Amino acid sequence: MGNVKQVAVLGSTGSIGRQTLEVISAHPKHFGIIGLAAGKNLDLLTRQISQFQPRFVYFQDRKALPADTDYTFLSLEEMASHPEVDIVVMATSGKWGLHPTLAAVKAGKRLALANKESLVMAGEIITTEAKQNRAKILPVDSEHSAIWQCLEGETGKPNKIILTASGGPFYHYSQAKLNKVTVEQALKHPSWRMGKKVTIDSATLMNKGLEVIEAHWLFGFPFEHINVLIHPQSIIHSMVEFGDGSVKAQLGCPDMRLPIQYALSYPERLPNPQLPKLDWESIKELTFAPPDYDSFPCLKLATEAGRRGGTYPAVLCGADEVAVELFLSGGIKFTDIARLVEQALEGHKATSHPTLEEILAADSWGREMVRQLASRDNL
Amino acid sequence: MGNVKQVAVLGSTGSIGRQTLEVISAHPKHFGIIGLAAGKNLDLLTRQISQFQPRFVYFQDRKALPADTDYTFLSLEEMASHPEVDIVVMATSGKWGLHPTLAAVKAGKRLALANKESLVMAGEIITTEAKQNRAKILPVDSEHSAIWQCLEGETGKPNKIILTASGGPFYHYSQAKLNKVTVEQALKHPSWRMGKKVTIDSATLMNKGLEVIEAHWLFGFPFEHINVLIHPQSIIHSMVEFGDGSVKAQLGCPDMRLPIQYALSYPERLPNPQLPKLDWESIKELTFAPPDYDSFPCLKLATEAGRRGGTYPAVLCGADEVAVELFLSGGIKFTDIARLVEQALEGHKATSHPTLEEILAADSWGREMVRQLASRDNL
Repeated sequence: MGNVKQVAVLGSTGSIGRQTLEVISAHPKHFGIIGLAAGKNLDLLTRQISQFQPRFVYFQDRKALPADTDYTFLSLEEMASHPEVDIVVMATSGKWGLHPTLAAVKAGKRLALANKESLVMAGEIITTEAKQNRAKILPVDSEHSAIWQCLEGETGKPNKIILTASGGPFYHYSQAKLNKVTVEQALKHPSWRMGKKVTIDSATLMNKGLEVIEAHWLFGFPFEHINVLIHPQSIIHSMVEFGDGSVKAQLGCPDMRLPIQYALSYPERLPNPQLPKLDWESIKELTFAPPDYDSFPCLKLATEAGRRGGTYPAVLCGADEVAVELFLSGGIKFTDIARLVEQALEGHKATSHPTLEEILAADSWGREMVRQLASRDNL
Repeated sequence: MGNVKQVAVLGSTGSIGRQTLEVISAHPKHFGIIGLAAGKNLDLLTRQISQFQPRFVYFQDRKALPADTDYTFLSLEEMASHPEVDIVVMATSGKWGLHPTLAAVKAGKRLALANKESLVMAGEIITTEAKQNRAKILPVDSEHSAIWQCLEGETGKPNKIILTASGGPFYHYSQAKLNKVTVEQALKHPSWRMGKKVTIDSATLMNKGLEVIEAHWLFGFPFEHINVLIHPQSIIHSMVEFGDGSVKAQLGCPDMRLPIQYALSYPERLPNPQLPKLDWESIKELTFAPPDYDSFPCLKLATEAGRRGGTYPAVLCGADEVAVELFLSGGIKFTDIARLVEQALEGHKATSHPTLEEILAADSWGREMVRQLASRDNL
């Protein structure tokens, strides 16, 4: 058992968390589960605990857990920084990932990072701490994993990064049609199965904008060299152009288990018959189109917030999360998401080089602002 | 001048040779020309000599060179193994590349290899000598360069190699239409500008078959894991699938100067404004199709000759070269190329683990056989 890497999965009941457990189950000689943490789904967490027998457990409502157990209850930060944890998989959603992500990098962990908000909201703090503590941040997103794979073995700085985007279900819609998009339509993503929030963010292209900010921090890349390209088949997960004009792309079936496994097994690759392979007999074409920034303003809003830096990305995240919730509950139109986020950003007085507390305050401010703006609209 | 690598270009007046000189001219701080060698084009060689002032020169008809000169005349083998040569670019065509290629690997050189026949005919000898003498064979072909770039930084053996093929100008033709193909049609390649022999070999897919054999020797890969995929746009130059199902592709404009430069600058990449960049605003789609082995029997013939090994690939090369000459001179039909090569292979009694002399004898035998078969057809 000496070579088995002990993995703590934070957010084990979500989409990424469940797929992480699938990957780990496929490689019992390589990985073991030392910790499981979940926010809301006690039923699934209980089943995961009985299947994986973790030593450490976290649940948001601690009292709901059975009293007499074989595991130790830890906070998210304690689990993310525990000396016996080799790899932290950060699959919690939203701002709840920030403190444990920071704890993991401060502890110099190997961090498989699926939580977007950590780098989007606090990229400066987290990458600085990671460098100081020799933590290794390994992206779990398919796009960033693709870029990372393309950069492996390369010596120089690339010319540019090309983040591909499926474009979501509406990428060819007119403004008039976008105004009438229903929740049901927005939840039908053409190529990826994901949680609701990410699915809506994919439909608005906000998700791609957040990925631009993540790419900036993960790879230390200036915003003007990060491009977005619509590629509806989601086969090319992203590309990198190098100094000589050569372009490398990483391709695969749209299945999150591949980037999850690569983040766990890196620099090795593990054979896994469960992972689907591309079938070139059935792939007839890969198509590409430039993104329509006018119809999908969230992409520009996010990139601009990232470029401005400071607390702007935190406001963006908070505002977007509330706007998406309001859309999902029928409170606002699809196109209101971008409008409300934009208004929140416009009203924000940013702080540069903010502390984590200032970042979380800006997030709360963004949330509150969107709630106020939306309720004013409804008066 | 200490860091300038001295390059000898064998075959400097051909298509690859001329493009190599363009690349070298773009990087005077990195590369210098120490040797130039050509077979037939004295006029161009003379101009190249006055431009690059090489210390070593070879021309097939030595007496045609001016008597009083500043350079030293060397044989191809002497130039390929000269101690002051850092990089040998082997851009001669046909079997003339074999002896100098062997001389270069025996001398432990860094060898940028564009000559197909060296590895196709004598892959076993050349890769064994390269290993023993720590020579580094760097492919100049766009497909093999792509595979090599995709393998950089990877630790494990890949699942498979996917060699892309433009399919040439006739890849959707019926057998009846193929029978009537003219020389003029066959010389119009849709995406690459190359010499006549390679252009015809691209139209028959023989070229792709030869590349399968080269890939086998270059990357030590079994034939059953080397696939061919038709990709008419020639943007993806080849792909590699790894153990976890992840696929890496290398993309670029169809321009040989990119793989030439990479072979010279590896592991670095040099910025070069002369090299065209992919323009994703104009690339609307990349398409793919399985190769049609029935309409293009050369692909199967070549792969089968490679699999059987011994002197079969030499017969293939010799037979094909004469068959292509006969087609170009109007002596046979386009579809006769494959038929004659097949008949030559069928009549051959192969030698396994042949010496270089046995390989060259098999090549001559293949040539003679096609000449006889063709003249018998015309009786």
